[in-house]
Amino acid sequence: MARAHWGCCPWLVLLCACAWGHPKTADLGGQDVRNCSTNPPYLPVTVVNTTVSLTALRQQMQTQNLSAYIIPDTDAHMNEYIGQHDERRAWITGFTGSAGTAVVTMKKAAVWTDSRYWTQAERQMDCNWELHKEVGTTPIVTWLLTEIPAGGCVGFDPFLLSIDTWESYNLALQGSNRQLVSITTNLVDLVWGSERPPVPNQPIYALQEAFTGSTWQEKVSDVRSQMQKHQKAPTAVLLSALEETAWLFNLRASDIPYNPFFYSYTLLTDSSIRLFANKSRFSSETLNYLNSSCTGPMCVQIEDYSQVRDSIQAYALGDVRIWIGTSYTMYGIYEVIPKEKLVTDTYSPVMMTKAVKNSKEQALLKASHVRDAVAVIRYLVWLEKNVPKGTVDEFSGAELVDKFRGEEQFSSGPSFETISASGLNAALAHYSPTKELNRKLSSDEMYLLDSGGQYWDGTTDITRTVHWGTPSAFQKEAYTRVLIGNIDLSRLIFPAATSGRMVEAFARRALWDAGLNYGHGTGHGIGNFLCVHEWPVGFQSNNIAMAKGMFTSIEPGYYKDGEFGIRLEDVALVVEAKTKYPGSYLTFEVVSFVPYDRNLIDVSLLSPEHLQYLNRYYQTIREKVGPELQRRQLLEEFKWLQQHTEPLAARAPDTASWASVLVVSTLAILGWSV
Amino acid sequence: MARAHWGCCPWLVLLCACAWGHPKTADLGGQDVRNCSTNPPYLPVTVVNTTVSLTALRQQMQTQNLSAYIIPDTDAHMNEYIGQHDERRAWITGFTGSAGTAVVTMKKAAVWTDSRYWTQAERQMDCNWELHKEVGTTPIVTWLLTEIPAGGCVGFDPFLLSIDTWESYNLALQGSNRQLVSITTNLVDLVWGSERPPVPNQPIYALQEAFTGSTWQEKVSDVRSQMQKHQKAPTAVLLSALEETAWLFNLRASDIPYNPFFYSYTLLTDSSIRLFANKSRFSSETLNYLNSSCTGPMCVQIEDYSQVRDSIQAYALGDVRIWIGTSYTMYGIYEVIPKEKLVTDTYSPVMMTKAVKNSKEQALLKASHVRDAVAVIRYLVWLEKNVPKGTVDEFSGAELVDKFRGEEQFSSGPSFETISASGLNAALAHYSPTKELNRKLSSDEMYLLDSGGQYWDGTTDITRTVHWGTPSAFQKEAYTRVLIGNIDLSRLIFPAATSGRMVEAFARRALWDAGLNYGHGTGHGIGNFLCVHEWPVGFQSNNIAMAKGMFTSIEPGYYKDGEFGIRLEDVALVVEAKTKYPGSYLTFEVVSFVPYDRNLIDVSLLSPEHLQYLNRYYQTIREKVGPELQRRQLLEEFKWLQQHTEPLAARAPDTASWASVLVVSTLAILGWSV
Repeated sequence: MARAHWGCCPWLVLLCACAWGHPKTADLGGQDVRNCSTNPPYLPVTVVNTTVSLTALRQQMQTQNLSAYIIPDTDAHMNEYIGQHDERRAWITGFTGSAGTAVVTMKKAAVWTDSRYWTQAERQMDCNWELHKEVGTTPIVTWLLTEIPAGGCVGFDPFLLSIDTWESYNLALQGSNRQLVSITTNLVDLVWGSERPPVPNQPIYALQEAFTGSTWQEKVSDVRSQMQKHQKAPTAVLLSALEETAWLFNLRASDIPYNPFFYSYTLLTDSSIRLFANKSRFSSETLNYLNSSCTGPMCVQIEDYSQVRDSIQAYALGDVRIWIGTSYTMYGIYEVIPKEKLVTDTYSPVMMTKAVKNSKEQALLKASHVRDAVAVIRYLVWLEKNVPKGTVDEFSGAELVDKFRGEEQFSSGPSFETISASGLNAALAHYSPTKELNRKLSSDEMYLLDSGGQYWDGTTDITRTVHWGTPSAFQKEAYTRVLIGNIDLSRLIFPAATSGRMVEAFARRALWDAGLNYGHGTGHGIGNFLCVHEWPVGFQSNNIAMAKGMFTSIEPGYYKDGEFGIRLEDVALVVEAKTKYPGSYLTFEVVSFVPYDRNLIDVSLLSPEHLQYLNRYYQTIREKVGPELQRRQLLEEFKWLQQHTEPLAARAPDTASWASVLVVSTLAILGWSV
Repeated sequence: MARAHWGCCPWLVLLCACAWGHPKTADLGGQDVRNCSTNPPYLPVTVVNTTVSLTALRQQMQTQNLSAYIIPDTDAHMNEYIGQHDERRAWITGFTGSAGTAVVTMKKAAVWTDSRYWTQAERQMDCNWELHKEVGTTPIVTWLLTEIPAGGCVGFDPFLLSIDTWESYNLALQGSNRQLVSITTNLVDLVWGSERPPVPNQPIYALQEAFTGSTWQEKVSDVRSQMQKHQKAPTAVLLSALEETAWLFNLRASDIPYNPFFYSYTLLTDSSIRLFANKSRFSSETLNYLNSSCTGPMCVQIEDYSQVRDSIQAYALGDVRIWIGTSYTMYGIYEVIPKEKLVTDTYSPVMMTKAVKNSKEQALLKASHVRDAVAVIRYLVWLEKNVPKGTVDEFSGAELVDKFRGEEQFSSGPSFETISASGLNAALAHYSPTKELNRKLSSDEMYLLDSGGQYWDGTTDITRTVHWGTPSAFQKEAYTRVLIGNIDLSRLIFPAATSGRMVEAFARRALWDAGLNYGHGTGHGIGNFLCVHEWPVGFQSNNIAMAKGMFTSIEPGYYKDGEFGIRLEDVALVVEAKTKYPGSYLTFEVVSFVPYDRNLIDVSLLSPEHLQYLNRYYQTIREKVGPELQRRQLLEEFKWLQQHTEPLAARAPDTASWASVLVVSTLAILGWSV
């Protein structure tokens, strides 16, 4: 799990926010919030004065004859993390939370956001802005209808509204005599002017062949063959998500925090390949790699990123059908393609193909997890020695694990902002420490580390929760129930093509049994040096069915508000299961290789099957990580690993539940008095 | 589970059909099918000559200027079972299968149906009819576009298309220059004329107060209070499903096979109650019960059933908002209400309220299940004695269990056609024996009985599978795995408002583990002398979240094609669960009280928790049914019950899986060679 989002694309944010309830905002120093009802209003020092920029924006709106202008929180590709130059909503409002929509009319300005951000918004926004504690298009439209006159126009940047969001606004405004107006020049950008941070311009590079599952030519041929087999015979596939273009061409860059992507689109037709990006960012070697100097069906023509809308519009004039993934294509592209020329699926064929890793990609991802385990184990060993000294805090810890990962071969930075949370902070949904605000690690508290790395061969994501002192009985019970959930789902055998949603409750049952639960999802896909939250794999209702070759995280948790938080997250490969009777069944093979904390496991809660599973898993960790530690002369870590993967022994049967059933049965035979 | 349908409304039929694969059509005597390619065509004796009726229908179409006419398989209320006078598709085509749509053009006639019915259709239809082995509106529209000229009109009876189906046709025909034309006079009925069976006309009667959870006045007040609380402030609720009107007024009749309903609609407004039905069917006592002679807000005005459309249309002229459940309202009603005057939900407030039984309704349903258990136990005892004699067949067996139920107090007939299936027949999806075609029961085969009763206090549905001889090891294993599934789901503790879909896999896990599964759903709601498949409760994706007071069946199974079938079905009440830590959690309380077959249980597969659960359940059966058997002097049955509910003993721990984990752990400690 990462800090702010749950999917590589942000459509899961709100789901996550709602499920978690109302966590406290830990990093904003209490309740020093604005008060607009006094005269003069009280404004904390954290507030941004937006009067000048709002006036300028309203001038732009007047020029366009708009009564209102919508400023969403996303970018043109629905990225999970967005670049600074795309943080328009944050810039115009002062409010920097990752979720929230702003709307400006000629008289008023307002922000709609969810409970995670209410305090933050009250600390950052000046009194030009109303705060609406609601989300979704319905409350926004309800407000618009009271604020703007009949006949008024509501402007928006079509590259910042997904098809679904646009349809939702459009439906709600229908018959209201207010009109949605698509304006491709972003009005906030006009006001932002030269202050706006520049668009990233680092080189775009090709991955070495050793780190790719197939060549881009093979991938292009495969997608074209899917186009041919499709009953609606699309003549082209349009790729809007940055990970799609990065995956298709085996290209990477660093435009987006934590994600090695670059701003791009691809229009792959039956006879041409058009890559929309900034051409100056390609070296001559990379241009050569892309066959960009020719014009045949296997030559990549590079067109400027800004040309994508016009080019699609021109292409759509022909006798063509353009296949799009509707989940992450923006209205700005959608509106220039005539409906009868669209072939729509929730996910593009690239997204669907990418979800299933071939054997080379599987091997690459597994290899990255072995090295990642080395980094995490080094950190855990270091913590065991240093936490008792009282010199470690959440922030320095996070820096250290990031450093250890950075020292691993093929490292390319963290895959998300490290969650390093001690004691009660681990119960907060989106907690990450800062240099200024953090908590000391202590042998008296639990500590949760959720972190991952980007490596040229794979992306990793693992969570471990530890306690160096004497955990309470409740902490051990909760930890063990979370562990049972992880094991029950990991070892589950299920029919091929089962959806994750159908089976995710196996990760919760042991918690439910005691009246405990967790408020977030149970897992997400992960990429080969791509997204740490890679769609469309996972356990949510909008994820696709499980198939052999997919990778997903499995991450049940438990959070005791104000006290502690537990999460145990592994990445697992979907593999064929061998069943007693023949059939097409799947199960998971865990590829995260860091042992759980023995100090927190209550063995008496584990069934024989759980123990058997756990001991086999520990054996695998020894086999995979042990030799790597030895090779690297990390002998202290090797010794630690051996200790922490000692087989766990079953409790003697006389104290186990078999005894109780015998008692119950006997009582039952005697007189049904149980 | 019942024979042909899975929901009280038939929208689940196809899902069920697909999941079951291609079961054989057992009751049509092999492959004696038509051959339209010979000259003259070969027609089995089972074929119906439709030339005359088709000609007459085409004359009617010509009068209406139609190029095509759609003849669906449903009635105006989406009933699970439909009356003979509504079997228009069967009458015009000759094909009597419960699912399939017919379309007639001026030159051609065709039927679309699913794989269950392909052979049956080829045996019953003459060569006037094409058979299309597909379902859904898309293939029908594709065919229509080739068969009828541009500008052509496609007629349909708006009371036979649901809103969704109409939208689906409408969307598919958009831009095709073919028009859908709603014609309220059914053209098949015009042709059918005096041959058409009469609409049922038996008395409509009020339930005694002892059998109702609330008075109709209380229910009306409750629905009105829901209208007031609704944010869209509907002024009226329209009830289209027959069970809604029956439930609201505590009225019953016998218009529909197995369901005690009568043809009706209700328009409940904030100031009036309008019940659309045949007034002559109410006794003066019942009219009095309904306060039908006054006109105040608590008086029921009875209007003629045929007036419903006109009355709704007239009401919709006012400043009103009509709340409908879109899942079972037909286009014929929907089209006369302006869109801005509609308040739509998937299920009406009556459907949602009815789903949660109050304490009196719970007690009534439970009481009916005790008597129902007596009938089933009498039958099982009788079978045990008579099957070895070789004199029992599936059909006579079904008749006997129906007779035993009929002898129970408050009995009102079976709640669906009894599934009585021996040996390989139990593996067929929709099998029911007939007098002519059935199989002998034998000690060498398994026998599956899925049956239920209508009683004034409740509706029941139970499946038991038995073997009187020596089952194979595989039969015992499969049976025990089905039993484990039933237990695992029944004893599950889950958070309030969890959807059934999220937890139904617990009923499958033990089967999946061995590579086994079943192709149908895991359960459905059930009513108080209403539908045996009562929506919207259950474990499908379109069921609503579980809440305290709901009743659902839990019915995993396993089917070995050509050999045997197993299903273990109980009805369970959703109750609050007591958890170790406080929280809002639910679990199930099983209210079916017939023991499972000890002969088929492999105790070694059961965990201590399973045995404990089972022995407690057996204790409950003894407590509930034992006294009733004694009271009724059914002493042989009482003895049988005591024997069949003896506590099952756990296998000694030394042979249990604890031993294997100790071995595994030891091996692991020694050298990781497991």
